[in-house]
Amino acid sequence: MKGKTQQKQQVDLLISHALVVTMDKAFRVIEDGGIAIKDDAIAGVGTTQEISMTFDAREVLDAKGKLIIPGLINTHTHSPMTIYRGFADDLPLKEWLYEHVFPIEAHFTNPENVRAGTRLAIAEMLLSGTTTFNDMYYYMDEMARVVDQVGIRAILSEAVINFPAPNAPTPDEGLTVIEKLYHDWQGHPLVRIGVAAHTPYTVPPEVMKKAKALADRYGMLFSVHVAESRWEFDKIMKEYGASPLKHLHNLGILDKNMVSVHSVFLTDEDIQLLAQNGVGVAHNPQCNMKLASGAARIPEMLEAGVEVGIGTDGVASNNDLDLIDEIRTMAFLHKFNSNDPTVISARKAVEIATIGGARVLGMDHLVGSIEVGKKADLAILDMEKPHAHPLYNIYSLIVYSLHGADVEHVLVNGKFLVKNRQLLTLDLGRLYDKVERIAKKVREHARLLGVLNSH
Amino acid sequence: MKGKTQQKQQVDLLISHALVVTMDKAFRVIEDGGIAIKDDAIAGVGTTQEISMTFDAREVLDAKGKLIIPGLINTHTHSPMTIYRGFADDLPLKEWLYEHVFPIEAHFTNPENVRAGTRLAIAEMLLSGTTTFNDMYYYMDEMARVVDQVGIRAILSEAVINFPAPNAPTPDEGLTVIEKLYHDWQGHPLVRIGVAAHTPYTVPPEVMKKAKALADRYGMLFSVHVAESRWEFDKIMKEYGASPLKHLHNLGILDKNMVSVHSVFLTDEDIQLLAQNGVGVAHNPQCNMKLASGAARIPEMLEAGVEVGIGTDGVASNNDLDLIDEIRTMAFLHKFNSNDPTVISARKAVEIATIGGARVLGMDHLVGSIEVGKKADLAILDMEKPHAHPLYNIYSLIVYSLHGADVEHVLVNGKFLVKNRQLLTLDLGRLYDKVERIAKKVREHARLLGVLNSH
Repeated sequence: MKGKTQQKQQVDLLISHALVVTMDKAFRVIEDGGIAIKDDAIAGVGTTQEISMTFDAREVLDAKGKLIIPGLINTHTHSPMTIYRGFADDLPLKEWLYEHVFPIEAHFTNPENVRAGTRLAIAEMLLSGTTTFNDMYYYMDEMARVVDQVGIRAILSEAVINFPAPNAPTPDEGLTVIEKLYHDWQGHPLVRIGVAAHTPYTVPPEVMKKAKALADRYGMLFSVHVAESRWEFDKIMKEYGASPLKHLHNLGILDKNMVSVHSVFLTDEDIQLLAQNGVGVAHNPQCNMKLASGAARIPEMLEAGVEVGIGTDGVASNNDLDLIDEIRTMAFLHKFNSNDPTVISARKAVEIATIGGARVLGMDHLVGSIEVGKKADLAILDMEKPHAHPLYNIYSLIVYSLHGADVEHVLVNGKFLVKNRQLLTLDLGRLYDKVERIAKKVREHARLLGVLNSH
Repeated sequence: MKGKTQQKQQVDLLISHALVVTMDKAFRVIEDGGIAIKDDAIAGVGTTQEISMTFDAREVLDAKGKLIIPGLINTHTHSPMTIYRGFADDLPLKEWLYEHVFPIEAHFTNPENVRAGTRLAIAEMLLSGTTTFNDMYYYMDEMARVVDQVGIRAILSEAVINFPAPNAPTPDEGLTVIEKLYHDWQGHPLVRIGVAAHTPYTVPPEVMKKAKALADRYGMLFSVHVAESRWEFDKIMKEYGASPLKHLHNLGILDKNMVSVHSVFLTDEDIQLLAQNGVGVAHNPQCNMKLASGAARIPEMLEAGVEVGIGTDGVASNNDLDLIDEIRTMAFLHKFNSNDPTVISARKAVEIATIGGARVLGMDHLVGSIEVGKKADLAILDMEKPHAHPLYNIYSLIVYSLHGADVEHVLVNGKFLVKNRQLLTLDLGRLYDKVERIAKKVREHARLLGVLNSH
């Protein structure tokens, strides 16, 4: 027995006695499961018995009564916009955007506010089980430093738009910023730089093509808001004689490194184009419902073989970053909208929030499931709650009953970032003070502009 | 100064330094607010300074950084069905009901399981801020004893149906059960007995009228599932030449002591009938979406002056009892369905979950708002969370960002039932064991029947 012990593989952390939902290809669910973690990666997955016979570790976490799922993946958000949470709600879409969000953003988008908003977003994401996010905003150098400090995983997609951006007066200068960002952060274990073209109506064809060419030169992910509203669909159709998605196809933009965000108004042909070109979709159901944009045709996309991930969009439109809440809404929305309660099963919803999202972001070789060799990005949830009993079907429990608030521990890249619901790498008290000071200024400025929204 | 102190009114509990959302007629929101509680009732509401000058108490709770709202009101649920949480999901409605829920309920509805399911439901409700619920099920004597033991507030509406019920072989015997229940629990501070007629298609006209007459004799609330599905609408229309709601009107059922549950398929005339007769509606948006029943015409009902409350329906169809989650879904659903983001403001959503629900249940003189003289039913929420910052608009924060899990303390009738997220009157560990043992039997029986649903 002693000889056998000495042959055990040394790892850094063993987690034992958990219910493990792997989201691997076989959708393996392991009762009394264990996970071995060495450095940043998963070294073993199996029953607690198998794992404890194979591995030895300095640190052991007894996770009896806990559920372990792959860290959740937010395929579309604007993290710094947390500072506008609840600033303007229940308004007509264009009034909301042009009279409230845009004027305020024009005034308040600066490095200091981007850092504070990003910290608040990451705090909320980690505490509700999100370990990877794809962001679209400005000042990605600021965000990258915060991501590096806190230790979450992110694709930071600097936005290109055809009017002066806060940190780039022209789109060309914007592209220069992105190229520099790429070189500055190349090889970072957690940060990847991406390119974001705002929309087909705010980015003209030549700029769109240049931005995509830059993304292709370095293998960067390319995210675009596509067909969020009926208004956009009609506008692009009128100007270019094609749907927004078809218009991008005509520009040669569609491929597997592209993320088509929202994608609410798609034709049948558009869905086929997504499938044929391997374009992933970032679906934001709560935002689309709250702003009354419409329902993306997710059941048809899934039927056609399109990869779908879940996104929250920015907190100014949603207003939170809880992905379990988001996939619950997704399931409800499509059952209701299709008049078919069998549409989007609970397992499919969990898939969309994990390995599906990883595929959309081109990161499924790294994250999205609990498998040997993948990065150790895990969310560990407390099941000792009334709403977690009884347990008949674990996918159903996750989607229809659990909450982000049930997350107890979170690991990213093999390191605990949340332990016993406490963030280990962020000082929340100071952050709340900072954010409330910013909000006070936002409120004062909105009052000056006459756009303060009080219900 | 000393003389002044001696004139202070002695109360049992002072809560100070909270953000108090009263939901009174003026929608008063008090920053740095205080509440004085004596016996079961609210003795004072104001700023902390006003309250501390007027009252003295044995016990003081410093609620700095907390939000206090009226305890939430669930206008429709089937508490004992928590034992079927996640038992059958993502199925066509009729298959779900007739092949899964009904056969299992027929086998497992007994006093022991009703007690366990009710305890689990009450635990979940209290921990997420619900302090009053209107239940429709069988064995209400069992439920009433649990309610009495735990200390939550409830209307327990024993169900009448035209086939043998678990505790009454005929509807007439069911009515006798209810009459006895009424006398047994008359005058109880927390329990009220109600009458529930299952649906217009499972309760024939004569039984419906008898049941309503019994309710009227004792001033009991009368709840009916009305027009949940298109199928029901068509069936009643064919049999009686009227919509389900109009059919009930023709029977003389509609008045302010009636709760019309679901009410998804209503004609314009039906909405006018609800308004004219003061019938309240128990709206269950998550259940209606998950089962693809449809969207109740809530914006039109509100426009017509119909009182609307929120309900979760039973956990077998929803699958939880978190009312904040439910009103968020409600707001999203109707914005989406109306194609209008201004529909159902955040404040209106909070109203529906509090004083609106109280009006639907005929209890607005007792609960639903934080006002002097009303019962002290309060939910106290922790705001020191990333998703609770920044604060621009408190109604918006509650509906779009907070969660039931943010509830830290709950009082019902002046007594703490939840303190620091711990239930004071229920032993959860034993309850989980009990419920999992029941679930094991349910699973075995479902396997025997060939209706075990595994995704």
